[in-house]
Formats: sequence, C-alpha cells, structure tokens
Amino acid sequence: MNAIRILVSAAVMLSAIAMNGESIAPSHKENTCQKKMRERGYGMFIHFGMNTFNGMEWSEGKDPASLYNPTELDCEQWVRTARDAGFRYVLLVTKHHDGFCLWDSAVTDYDVASSGNKTDVVKAVSDACRKYGLEFGVYYSLWDRHEPSYKADDFSGYRKYMDDQLTELLTNYGDVCEIWFDGGWDRKPEDWDIPHIYELVKSLQPDCAMGVNNSAYLAEDDLSKNIYGSAGPDEMTGKHNVKFAYFPMDFRLKDPFIANWNDNKIYNVDGEDYYLPFEHTICLSKKWNWFQKEKPMETRDIDELEELFYRTMANNNTLVINVPPDQRGLMRRNEINALMELRDRIGISPAGKKLKHNTLKRPVSVGRACRASSEWDAADYGADKAFDGGVHHRWASRDTTAWLEVDLDPAKEFNRISIFEYMDEVMAPDGFSRKRANRITEYSIEALNNGKWETIYLSTDPMGDCKVINFATPQRAEKLRLDIRRATAPPSIYELSVYAAE
Amino acid sequence: MNAIRILVSAAVMLSAIAMNGESIAPSHKENTCQKKMRERGYGMFIHFGMNTFNGMEWSEGKDPASLYNPTELDCEQWVRTARDAGFRYVLLVTKHHDGFCLWDSAVTDYDVASSGNKTDVVKAVSDACRKYGLEFGVYYSLWDRHEPSYKADDFSGYRKYMDDQLTELLTNYGDVCEIWFDGGWDRKPEDWDIPHIYELVKSLQPDCAMGVNNSAYLAEDDLSKNIYGSAGPDEMTGKHNVKFAYFPMDFRLKDPFIANWNDNKIYNVDGEDYYLPFEHTICLSKKWNWFQKEKPMETRDIDELEELFYRTMANNNTLVINVPPDQRGLMRRNEINALMELRDRIGISPAGKKLKHNTLKRPVSVGRACRASSEWDAADYGADKAFDGGVHHRWASRDTTAWLEVDLDPAKEFNRISIFEYMDEVMAPDGFSRKRANRITEYSIEALNNGKWETIYLSTDPMGDCKVINFATPQRAEKLRLDIRRATAPPSIYELSVYAAE
Repeated sequence: MNAIRILVSAAVMLSAIAMNGESIAPSHKENTCQKKMRERGYGMFIHFGMNTFNGMEWSEGKDPASLYNPTELDCEQWVRTARDAGFRYVLLVTKHHDGFCLWDSAVTDYDVASSGNKTDVVKAVSDACRKYGLEFGVYYSLWDRHEPSYKADDFSGYRKYMDDQLTELLTNYGDVCEIWFDGGWDRKPEDWDIPHIYELVKSLQPDCAMGVNNSAYLAEDDLSKNIYGSAGPDEMTGKHNVKFAYFPMDFRLKDPFIANWNDNKIYNVDGEDYYLPFEHTICLSKKWNWFQKEKPMETRDIDELEELFYRTMANNNTLVINVPPDQRGLMRRNEINALMELRDRIGISPAGKKLKHNTLKRPVSVGRACRASSEWDAADYGADKAFDGGVHHRWASRDTTAWLEVDLDPAKEFNRISIFEYMDEVMAPDGFSRKRANRITEYSIEALNNGKWETIYLSTDPMGDCKVINFATPQRAEKLRLDIRRATAPPSIYELSVYAAE
Repeated sequence: MNAIRILVSAAVMLSAIAMNGESIAPSHKENTCQKKMRERGYGMFIHFGMNTFNGMEWSEGKDPASLYNPTELDCEQWVRTARDAGFRYVLLVTKHHDGFCLWDSAVTDYDVASSGNKTDVVKAVSDACRKYGLEFGVYYSLWDRHEPSYKADDFSGYRKYMDDQLTELLTNYGDVCEIWFDGGWDRKPEDWDIPHIYELVKSLQPDCAMGVNNSAYLAEDDLSKNIYGSAGPDEMTGKHNVKFAYFPMDFRLKDPFIANWNDNKIYNVDGEDYYLPFEHTICLSKKWNWFQKEKPMETRDIDELEELFYRTMANNNTLVINVPPDQRGLMRRNEINALMELRDRIGISPAGKKLKHNTLKRPVSVGRACRASSEWDAADYGADKAFDGGVHHRWASRDTTAWLEVDLDPAKEFNRISIFEYMDEVMAPDGFSRKRANRITEYSIEALNNGKWETIYLSTDPMGDCKVINFATPQRAEKLRLDIRRATAPPSIYELSVYAAE
C-alpha cells in the first residue's frame, strides 16, 4: 500500500463516453480503438501470478502473498522476447481469479508489495513495452476469490474496489491499448454493471479497447467436448441474433475458441447492429494450460501454431498467444525457441513494420459439395461440417476406416492442405489441464483428375494435432479425398482446408 | 533379339586401361572419373523391372517375360522428375538378380523385347537424360537367377554373356557416367574376374566410374541389426587396412550404409594406397524397399532425407536416392511431391548449376567428451558411440529413462541438432521389407550455461526416424544433454550431432 492512492470517483467519469462520441463507442462500423486493435493484431498474453507458484490453474485466493516469490524476475526478458518474436503488444494478467495483484494496489494487501518479490510487475512490463516499442494491455478478473467485499451482501463495496483498481491500472502505467475482463460467469451479468465499467475505461483511456470473456450466451459451445470452437453461432449464414451477456464492448472474447473464416463481425444487440471483431486467445503450450508449472511444458507443433496464426488473423481479427513465465520469473528457453521458429515460419518482422493480415486467403474447399464413407449422424456430424469454414462443428465417421471427399475446381491449383482432427482428451492429474490424443494413424490424400485417382500424399505417422501438408509444386483435382486407412477409433474431422496456390 | 548384335570380343579391350593410364585407374588421388562423379554428386536411382510386377524384392527369374507389362510407361516422366528435383544423374537398374533385361539384349530372350511392353527402357531413359541435361548411369547385377549359363559347370559361358551385355550397354546408349555392379556375393569374388570387367568398362567408356556393391569384407556389419551402418571400419582413426573383395574399382559401395563424417577415402589394397570415394544408396520410401509395390508407400520424413543429404554429400562423397516407378510405368505423385519438398529444403537448383557439396560442416559434437546415465556395455555401447561421427555404432542405455550428455565449447553457437535413434524393426509380410519402430516417446534437450541447466527443446511426440531440431536463434552450452523421459524400451542412439551456427 505504498503507492500513491488515486482517488478518482467513478461518478466523475460517466459522461466521458458521450464526450468522445461514436468514434469510441461500438457502432455498426469500426471505431477508433477497433482500428488500432486490428493494426496491432498479434499480441503476447502473459499469465503470471500466484498460480505460477502453487501448481494450480485457478487457486482459491487462500495462498499467502508470500508464496509469490520469483527469484530471477526479469520483465524486460518477457517483453524483449515478445519484440523479437514479432508480437505488437503484450497483454498482462494483472489480477487472476485468485485476486492477487501484480501491482502495488492501494486498496488491498493481497499484492506484490506484500509478497516475496516486491517488484511492481505492471510497471516493469509497461515500462519495458515503451522501451521496446510494443503496446501494453491488461487482463483483469472480475471474479475475485480473495477480496472480502466480493462476498459481502452489498456488492457495491466490491464494485467500488474494482473502480479503484481499474483507475490505478489505467492511470499509473501510461497508455493501455486494451483491457480484457474475465470471470464474469461467477455472478449474474448485470451485477458487474458493464456499461459503467465501459464508461470508466473510456473516460481514463479513450483509445483502450475493451472486451469481456464469454460475451455471448452460446449453449451449444461445450468446452468439455471441443478444443476448438466457434466464436459465434451460425457464422456460415451470417445470422447473429445472439444475446450478449456483457455490453457495451469493443471486441468479442470467447477463450479459447476460434472464429469461422466467414466471421463478418456484425452482431445485432437489442435491434442495433454492431461491428465487433474477435480476439483469439491460445496457449503456446500443447496442454490447455495458462500458468507455467514447475516443469517445462511442450509447445504446440509449429505447424499448428502457423495454421492458427493464419486462421485467427484472417478477417481482420486478432490473436494473442499465452507465454507464461516460470517460477524464476523468466520465460523458458524451449518456449522462446518455439516462438522464434514460428516467427520465421510466418515471416513476421519484429514490431515496427506494419503487420500482414490475411496472409492466407479463405480456403477454396469451404462450402463445396462433399461426401463421406459414413456419417455418425448426417445432421450433426455430416461431411459438410468438415468444409464449413470453422473448427467448431465436425464430421464423424461410423467406422475406423473411412474417407472424406470434397469437389474442387480443377482449374485452380492448390499448394496447402490443413486438417484439424477431433482428438480424444486425457485429463491431467491437476483436474484442469487436458492433453490431446489423436485417432488417425495412417492416411493418404487422393486426387481425382481425368477419371483417375492418384495418391498425392501418404503417411503412416499419427496425424498430429493439426496436420499441414505443403506441396512444393502446385496440385489440381476435380475431387480431393482424405483416405483414412487406420485409426484407433472412428475418426472425426473439424475442418479440412484446401488453400489455393497464389 | 531384334537389336543389332554387337560382337565385340572382351579380349580386344584388355589393353585399354594401360592406354589410358593413371588418370583412369584408381590411385592414391582422385582420378578423372572420380572427379566427374564428385561434381555430379546427387543422382536418382531407378529400380524398375520384373519385381515391379510380382510384388517381390528379389524374384527367382522364373516369372515369364510377359508378366512385365507397364500400361502407361513414360520414361520421360521419370527423368523430368529427376531434373525438376535437382538430381544430376540417373542410375537405372538395367538387370536385377532375376536376370530380366530392360533393353533388347542380343544374348537373351528374357528381356523387354519379349515382354508385354517392348519399349527399350535403357534407350528411353538415356535419351531422356540427354534431352533434360542429366548424365546416365547403369546398374547391372552380376548374379543372374535366370540365365542358364550362370548355373553351368563351366562359368566361362556366363562370363562371355556378361561381356556381351556390358558391351551392349556401354556401346549402344551413348555416354554412361557410372556402372554399379551388384550381387557378387552369390559366388566367390574371384569368379567374376573384376580386373577383366574393369578393363572392359574402361576400354568402352574411359570416363565411366565403376563400383561393386559390398566391396569390402566387414564381418561386423550385420544388416539384420542396423538400418544405418558404416561404410568401412575404424573410420574415426583413419585405419583402413581392409581386404577388398573386388578390385579395381573407382568407388566404394555398401548399400545402404552411411559413411562416417571422418571418411578419408584412402584405403590400402595389397600395400598400395587408393583414393576411393563412397556412393551412398538410400530409398525414398520409409520401408527398406527398392521396387515399387502395388500400393503407394509412405516416403521418409523430409527431415531425415534432408539430414541424410547433408551427411552423405559431405566429404566429397555422393548420394543416389531410389525412386521406383509403379506398375503403370510412372513415378507416383506422393513420391514426386516429397522429392520437390526435399529440393526446396536443401535449396538445390535444377541440374545445370554446380552442386553445393559440404553444405553442413562436420558437427561440433564429434569426438567430444561425453557420458550417459548408464551404458548397456561400455566397450560396445558406450556414450562415445553417439558422438563418433557415424551412424554405425550406437550408445545403448540399461534403463528406459536415461540421459546422454556431451561437452561443447560454450564460445561456439549452434543452431541445429540431429538425432538418429536406434529403432526396433518389424518385418513386413513379404519377408524382405522392414519397418522401423521408435522407442523414445518423450524427451528434452537441456543446455548447461553458467552452472544452470535450461530446457531448450521439449517434445512429447515420438522421436521419429531422424529428429532434426532447428533453432531460429543460435544457442550456446557448456554441456548439452538429451534427457529421455519416456521410452517403450531402453533407448539407444546411433548419433547425436550438434551443428555450429555459421
């Protein structure tokens, strides 16, 4: 509690949004902060805090502040890594659900100032961002499992607590490009008074883009069944009459789902159309695991990261990749090495130059006529689900040997195929992390030309999380078939994408 | 037997070698044809013939000539593929152990002229090589399971048969850059009269480089135990007092073994030193399988092919990769696609420009101090075997969890590690082909710097046939350790190579 106490009443801020007008509030077209967000595009998400030290993903806010104790903390290393890897901004978790604050907050003792390492991490990271030419954004959990006022009968005390903390974050650390709220599900949506928070944010930092996780109620999106998922319903048809839990906001969030190629970003809220881009959040690690654990974790395959980069950056949406520092307070070298390999793959230059969006065009396979050897259920698991432009719905076979086929334009050459396979999941001992297990172990890609089928790719290795097949010489096909020759269970494909050679 | 019968007596040729002098015969330094061979460097090996149609690797010469019947034979497609893939020469199997000849031989009816497709394949391929700017070489099996004179009490009849056939091959098809003899093991070495054959070859084509497979007796090279192997004994120490079964010759052959990085090519034969480069022969397919089968086969991983290219082309040795056409008489698209990907990886330009040898320098890990968590047997399976520069000897652990460590110069940066793992082998139903099965399923690379170990690479995927780890940013280490966290059996490593960043 050594920081200068900033006492700015929320009430004073309420007129700010009107002052700044339509260019800041969400509307039917891109507003100023949405434009800046699109131009940034690619950010490093940093989860660091109490959960780095307790081995859990979501601790209960009962660990003593002293447990947080990085021994070699070097926030400059984090931001230098982000800069070298081509990221344009850093999104720092300033307070997770456990309530522990990475800055010296005037309104709580559950923060770094009372911990084993008193460095103000928010200051160190925001300073490093300025030094290395990156923008700085903050993640803040609405849900707070530590703060006593959160559990009080009168919730207004906690709302005041949030106002004070947000004012600290948005006043003491220079420009904040983005604020990312999480954990709203612990209370009724209206309890948070999102319109008030939106006004507060905009009054302090007019250009700060605001998003709230799980913005939309989507009953069919069941995380327990899907690693990948849609960022909204019916995106193929462009119908978006979805009820938003939180509004206003500048961008949609539904961690860790992936938007459809056809994401048009126009959502209807209470009769008005709003332009709402989507920020994708993925982990660098193969396990769905946000905080670093005691031992290093394996990273996703570079193939999968590369494909996700193209897919999530398409359509003027954005991507943040989570790279959590470890208990030393350093990013791990195996993760840094993977980021640099990804940088070279996607051909992204370090921050400074304009980011290339839309590197890969929409796959030519999306929406084409298709068929399969069998379908688990034609309505829900038909072959068309593998060519619907998204990784939410999927085709499923009835047999372990199976094929999936799509008609292509034989006049158009292609040179890249990506396949997102449905994976069985194994729960890790922590009861939270999940590991993916592939089913398809032997498969080929067959092309039909002039009445003859030819094998253009053949593998007896497991398909892997996201298989990408590049062709050094362009290929053509009237029909393209994935022939699954061996699988440990009936195979299922989220999406098979064929990209035109250009 | 429609071809013009060429009657050139072998006796006429015997003085040719003397005529042409030391620049053609093997000596202590590179002769003319060895120099040209080095400059060619990278060739496509083509196995095609009776075994393409009977599903066997080594048939007995009893299939009727009519069984050979390619329906869409296109030798230009083969050579065009070789040209596009960056190969400099084609090495065609003109007669395998079954005795069936791919040209219209005047001395037998067991040839294409009596088959279902009468195209003279030797002519078609050599013509295509001239058209596409590649050199042309021939493989010829000494062993002949069909020709009746082979089994006669008087072997001179078969020797005459060979002289006639070799004369046809080296007279009727233009320049032949190389001749590759095989199958000598079926009789005593002296039966073949290799000095006579060498003289015959040189008299007809002075610049034709000649090699005989399994030139050296090496009892410890047991193919049933090793996929990879040494091209000669004791190559670390440079001692080469090996008895050659066949001499003279211009290059060593020991299919499919891989030479050591330290291969110095000087061999002592009967008290004289000879410069003898090594021609490597590998299959494009993952299975050790020379003739195409009815169904397409998976190719080796591009990582492994790339590493083998660097390793086999080093030291001015040469490499041929076998790409067998199928029963149509066409190369398969999945194999062509793999070749083009390899071409792009190794950055080789199509034939015409000078080939780059020695793309990767000798690994900095070769011969360095090393140790392991355990050794199956320190003498034969010590840690040093994994750093001896070759993929013949190997380190083997006593436990399924294990580590292998090498000291490096911390002042020198490295950016590439390759690991050849010992693999269990599964025999295919044909009783000849073998498939590799890895043991290591989870592993990391650890680097020691300033007294601290850090994980620089971590994988929970099976290691694969040849794991290559590239680092986008150079690394340093005082010690480097392969930490094997999970394996299905005690792991064993042929070679772990660390390459300097240059």
